[in-house]
Amino acid sequence: MRILIVNPNTTASMTDRIAAAAESVAAPGTKLLAVTSSMGPASIEGYYDEALAVPGLLQAVRLGERDGARAAIIACFDDTGLDAARCAAAIPVIGICEAAVVTASFIAQRFTVVTTMERSRLPLEALMDRYGVGRRATVRAADIHVLSLEDPTSSARERLCREIERALREDRAEAIVLGCAGMADLPRQLQAEYGVPVVDGVAAAVKQAECLVTLGLATAKGGAYAYPLQKRYAGILDAFAPVNGASTT
Amino acid sequence: MRILIVNPNTTASMTDRIAAAAESVAAPGTKLLAVTSSMGPASIEGYYDEALAVPGLLQAVRLGERDGARAAIIACFDDTGLDAARCAAAIPVIGICEAAVVTASFIAQRFTVVTTMERSRLPLEALMDRYGVGRRATVRAADIHVLSLEDPTSSARERLCREIERALREDRAEAIVLGCAGMADLPRQLQAEYGVPVVDGVAAAVKQAECLVTLGLATAKGGAYAYPLQKRYAGILDAFAPVNGASTT
Amino acid sequence: MRILIVNPNTTASMTDRIAAAAESVAAPGTKLLAVTSSMGPASIEGYYDEALAVPGLLQAVRLGERDGARAAIIACFDDTGLDAARCAAAIPVIGICEAAVVTASFIAQRFTVVTTMERSRLPLEALMDRYGVGRRATVRAADIHVLSLEDPTSSARERLCREIERALREDRAEAIVLGCAGMADLPRQLQAEYGVPVVDGVAAAVKQAECLVTLGLATAKGGAYAYPLQKRYAGILDAFAPVNGASTT
Amino acid sequence: MRILIVNPNTTASMTDRIAAAAESVAAPGTKLLAVTSSMGPASIEGYYDEALAVPGLLQAVRLGERDGARAAIIACFDDTGLDAARCAAAIPVIGICEAAVVTASFIAQRFTVVTTMERSRLPLEALMDRYGVGRRATVRAADIHVLSLEDPTSSARERLCREIERALREDRAEAIVLGCAGMADLPRQLQAEYGVPVVDGVAAAVKQAECLVTLGLATAKGGAYAYPLQKRYAGILDAFAPVNGASTT
Amino acid sequence: MRILIVNPNTTASMTDRIAAAAESVAAPGTKLLAVTSSMGPASIEGYYDEALAVPGLLQAVRLGERDGARAAIIACFDDTGLDAARCAAAIPVIGICEAAVVTASFIAQRFTVVTTMERSRLPLEALMDRYGVGRRATVRAADIHVLSLEDPTSSARERLCREIERALREDRAEAIVLGCAGMADLPRQLQAEYGVPVVDGVAAAVKQAECLVTLGLATAKGGAYAYPLQKRYAGILDAFAPVNGASTT
Amino acid sequence: MRILIVNPNTTASMTDRIAAAAESVAAPGTKLLAVTSSMGPASIEGYYDEALAVPGLLQAVRLGERDGARAAIIACFDDTGLDAARCAAAIPVIGICEAAVVTASFIAQRFTVVTTMERSRLPLEALMDRYGVGRRATVRAADIHVLSLEDPTSSARERLCREIERALREDRAEAIVLGCAGMADLPRQLQAEYGVPVVDGVAAAVKQAECLVTLGLATAKGGAYAYPLQKRYAGILDAFAPVNGASTT
Repeated sequence: MRILIVNPNTTASMTDRIAAAAESVAAPGTKLLAVTSSMGPASIEGYYDEALAVPGLLQAVRLGERDGARAAIIACFDDTGLDAARCAAAIPVIGICEAAVVTASFIAQRFTVVTTMERSRLPLEALMDRYGVGRRATVRAADIHVLSLEDPTSSARERLCREIERALREDRAEAIVLGCAGMADLPRQLQAEYGVPVVDGVAAAVKQAECLVTLGLATAKGGAYAYPLQKRYAGILDAFAPVNGASTT
Repeated sequence: MRILIVNPNTTASMTDRIAAAAESVAAPGTKLLAVTSSMGPASIEGYYDEALAVPGLLQAVRLGERDGARAAIIACFDDTGLDAARCAAAIPVIGICEAAVVTASFIAQRFTVVTTMERSRLPLEALMDRYGVGRRATVRAADIHVLSLEDPTSSARERLCREIERALREDRAEAIVLGCAGMADLPRQLQAEYGVPVVDGVAAAVKQAECLVTLGLATAKGGAYAYPLQKRYAGILDAFAPVNGASTT
Repeated sequence: MRILIVNPNTTASMTDRIAAAAESVAAPGTKLLAVTSSMGPASIEGYYDEALAVPGLLQAVRLGERDGARAAIIACFDDTGLDAARCAAAIPVIGICEAAVVTASFIAQRFTVVTTMERSRLPLEALMDRYGVGRRATVRAADIHVLSLEDPTSSARERLCREIERALREDRAEAIVLGCAGMADLPRQLQAEYGVPVVDGVAAAVKQAECLVTLGLATAKGGAYAYPLQKRYAGILDAFAPVNGASTT
Repeated sequence: MRILIVNPNTTASMTDRIAAAAESVAAPGTKLLAVTSSMGPASIEGYYDEALAVPGLLQAVRLGERDGARAAIIACFDDTGLDAARCAAAIPVIGICEAAVVTASFIAQRFTVVTTMERSRLPLEALMDRYGVGRRATVRAADIHVLSLEDPTSSARERLCREIERALREDRAEAIVLGCAGMADLPRQLQAEYGVPVVDGVAAAVKQAECLVTLGLATAKGGAYAYPLQKRYAGILDAFAPVNGASTT
Repeated sequence: MRILIVNPNTTASMTDRIAAAAESVAAPGTKLLAVTSSMGPASIEGYYDEALAVPGLLQAVRLGERDGARAAIIACFDDTGLDAARCAAAIPVIGICEAAVVTASFIAQRFTVVTTMERSRLPLEALMDRYGVGRRATVRAADIHVLSLEDPTSSARERLCREIERALREDRAEAIVLGCAGMADLPRQLQAEYGVPVVDGVAAAVKQAECLVTLGLATAKGGAYAYPLQKRYAGILDAFAPVNGASTT
Repeated sequence: MRILIVNPNTTASMTDRIAAAAESVAAPGTKLLAVTSSMGPASIEGYYDEALAVPGLLQAVRLGERDGARAAIIACFDDTGLDAARCAAAIPVIGICEAAVVTASFIAQRFTVVTTMERSRLPLEALMDRYGVGRRATVRAADIHVLSLEDPTSSARERLCREIERALREDRAEAIVLGCAGMADLPRQLQAEYGVPVVDGVAAAVKQAECLVTLGLATAKGGAYAYPLQKRYAGILDAFAPVNGASTT
């Protein structure tokens, strides 16, 4: 079972850490393919970065499906481009925020998502509403840059822990959800440290992808996720024009 | 990895079909243990049956955890006793409705749950709200008895199909969720027949249980799901009294 | 007019205090019958206790209806077993939380429920949503055991008052709702002390029961509260099996 | 116990019927005082009539409190002026819509309100949301004038019944709420005719008023329902100016 | 284009300031007519004042429409009488709260409304829900009397600023909405002082009125805003009786 | 006052019609600049087209702001890229759906949006929720291609009218909102034909843009709409990399 993981942040070192986290939970028969998007922002911080990460992401998902992937994962906690990717492909497409939230919901009634920057807080609160956990989830920002999570000399880890401690004390969080793909290496350490369940979206998404493939379920194409219609695309995005109403280039 | 499936309907033949559906999707390393609850209603149809199915269910979950189960599944689409079972045990406990809804959410924006009896419609609508999909899900009742699903001479299958057809036409459902553990043998046939994703909660729950165990996640015990406190239990339920605040008998 | 009050906490001294609070507000023609459930937990603290209190409660409601009660009250602020009891009987069944919330709604726009233990906070928040006052009500836990309310040497009263003071100051509560049947003796004292309306659910439920009986209204049996269907019940709960689809044993 | 019922429709014959319905359910010790408002529309049909019924209503409530009423009822199903009346007085003020909805909530999960004119449908839907039953209640208009309910030769009764039948069939209503004070004489007949609970707001409000008085509860004056501040009122409404911040003239 | 602004607070000096704020943003072709209501409270503080301001307001709107106004503005942040005024007239009627909220929504995701008195906080929270921004808007009261905003020796301005500062710090408000018509002279100064968008409802409503007139849009009369029906009005309000179902006196 | 209108559908003839509709309502001092996006789909029909229209849209907004536009309008009813554009620029950015909904809200309590294709229905329902009118608005699809609106020989106009008629009859819509920029030439004709208010988003957005500019209000940059951070952008989108945290290229 081939599963594609697309890192829409165009930073290859971040993809490596994502891949490692994914591998650590993959089932024996699963073959993971982690790719770095070839166009867009080095890191996704806010709506502008999000929007411009989507074309590269869609391209990667379409190529992945063409090459035999059975499911695709969007490894950015904003779940950017999720709906468009579900239109572009027939294989299941899973956002890591959605996967993390769903997973946390099975084990806790109230949880806190700790993300990186304040500018991502409101977009994530909107996602919590979309995924139906608006009343169960609190979102906090640790005030760190996404790529600083890669830098052992930064204070990113300290800031993250400080916010987790606030979540446990002030939000009475029963569990913690890590709100950035760049934190995918941390859940087990933090779970040991704080004694509460800690959920990472990358690992959660790998398992959800395996579930859907095993269950023989694919994206419903009879409604909002119908394939895009065949039409002309202008300018540098002409390569994205749907052909014959199909999702392949 | 041992996973317990409790059928709170005290009808062994129904447990057999549930077990078969579960086996068909279990991972190679998973050892499923499907048990029929030893007390309560032969089938769960409405709030009264639901409530009286819970003691037997809790006993089965506690015994299962004692005997080494790593996760437990409640195989009734009302997810009866879910919160109580999460208090009683530390292993993850998964309701088949919750698992089905979560699974459908990854592949469709709007879906319809087709359940058995009208009296289960409102309880399921309340569950849709609890699981945050109240605006995405429609609930329909096919007007069939739970145990008639076991009887090939009944009209249960026809009624179920008629309601699925209405869901596709009138609700514009993008996917169908089967709203009874007794339908666990049907999803693949119906998916082939109707050309839309069809989700069964038993299979979905097996996969979610495997996910949680692999991710090293267990029920959060620091809030609403804390272990019950040690106290006296009167009458025929005295065996359920928590001992030392622990979940084992 | 006979009205049944069932204390699903199997502690007779608590029933006595509930009965006294009920008597103090009953109309001249009302004959109250307060019974202690014969099976289940000594006190209800959390989901596990709640679930196991239900069989005893249902038995008491069915016996009460058989013996001529015109309405039944469930004297536990979690309103445990409310839906099942409404299926089991034709007489109106009233939860003390529901009655208290409804009563407070007539006299205040925002109010705070002060309950006993933290583990009951989330279940009560879910009830506030169910009863449609989720945006008007705050729930606070005073961190006291239910049965400590019976012990004059405990600090229960002090803790309760401290939380009421917080509610008035921090929540700007216009009224206080006492969130445990064990507090039924306190509303008038506390109302005098704090100068805001203080609502107790036991007294409120007695009045609601009288209302419904006088108005000639009974539980609607044409939908979710239909009588349970006749079927076999296994194990020690066999005595609960519905007979001829009727609610009497 | 004196209870004031104000009919804000300035039609005395309607007040008589309201009084009769109220008397039929009042407790032995209750002395009802039904008054017709002295200013405003002959019948309340839509927002404009509603708004202009309020001054007369407030005057009647203030006079009633001065003369010893222990609670006041607003006998118009739009609950017009409810918040202002709660500011004007310290005694509990009850709207008949609020009382009916609360009463229906104890005995049915889903119910339908049948009101008079289409122009009242949206205002009542807004009230359903305010009272927290937006998802449980459907509102239907029977397309009849309020005062035609007084005319035995009109088709009002037939239209009302036709809409009740639609509610039972199409909404699967478990109970019916009569959505106009002018229907206060009908609930018992209709209940017998249709075999489902039928709730009238006038009778329900009388019982709620008795409840609140017996429980020693009055309107919370520490928040949104504080007494109006002393100030000058211009023009023909000068008599309404609050004096010394008190509610009496 | 004549646009009517009605100040339902019967204080002429306040109307002058409202008129000045309105003039400062009106388009060249707009002729503003600001009138002080001839009956009702000197200032609107709470539900009681609100209700009694409505008759004078309705009279002014009807006269304004008769005299050629193309749109009407209600210059009180409670949007008192808005629905009734929309029934009474065919021209668009705009509340300044509604206009301010809509305007703020185009430029900020989260904003805080700073109003005068605590007793207005809950009514404004209800308006935020009505206008669909309940989750985006926080309401704060600065604890000042409406008319003290006219008095340069009062501490009103300081209290207002203190509350704005709290909003920026504690609510993380992206913009501020001034929650009283008496603050209409302040937005530009405060915007300069705090460096965030500051929205005043009076100015916002003038622009919305111009929009609607230019777009050729008037109040929909086919539903909840239908003209009032012809009927008798009793007592001192007899002049408000609708004539021939039309809105003119 | 220069106002930019970006048509993210890369079809110039459609831009011409949008410009004409905009000109017909613009104030004398307004200078409109209507541009066709230089990259992306010929028409926007569903999530995939939407996502790929965004880069071209953002480029046009940034260029427009650089060249002196005081506000920008996104002329696609999906309001695609709205949040990203608000980050990219300091000038107000207005979506035509948002503007239409806001405008309709001032004149009607319930309205129906009639859009083109079924695949746009769910995205628009999500927008209705975002803009807080989920309970007031119904969304219908007329089953027409966006570009067929340009073709006088197509049945597009008939299908649109048929759906409007259904909205008036079945939804009891008080007003109609045209749910596609390609319908911008139709509101006045349809309003005359059906006798109910008909709102077009392009015209509505022009007026809202003028409002915001006159009021001196710009996008709040202190929260979710902060300027994008300076960083590297990979691949063909490198020209979109934010420079010095500013929005200009």
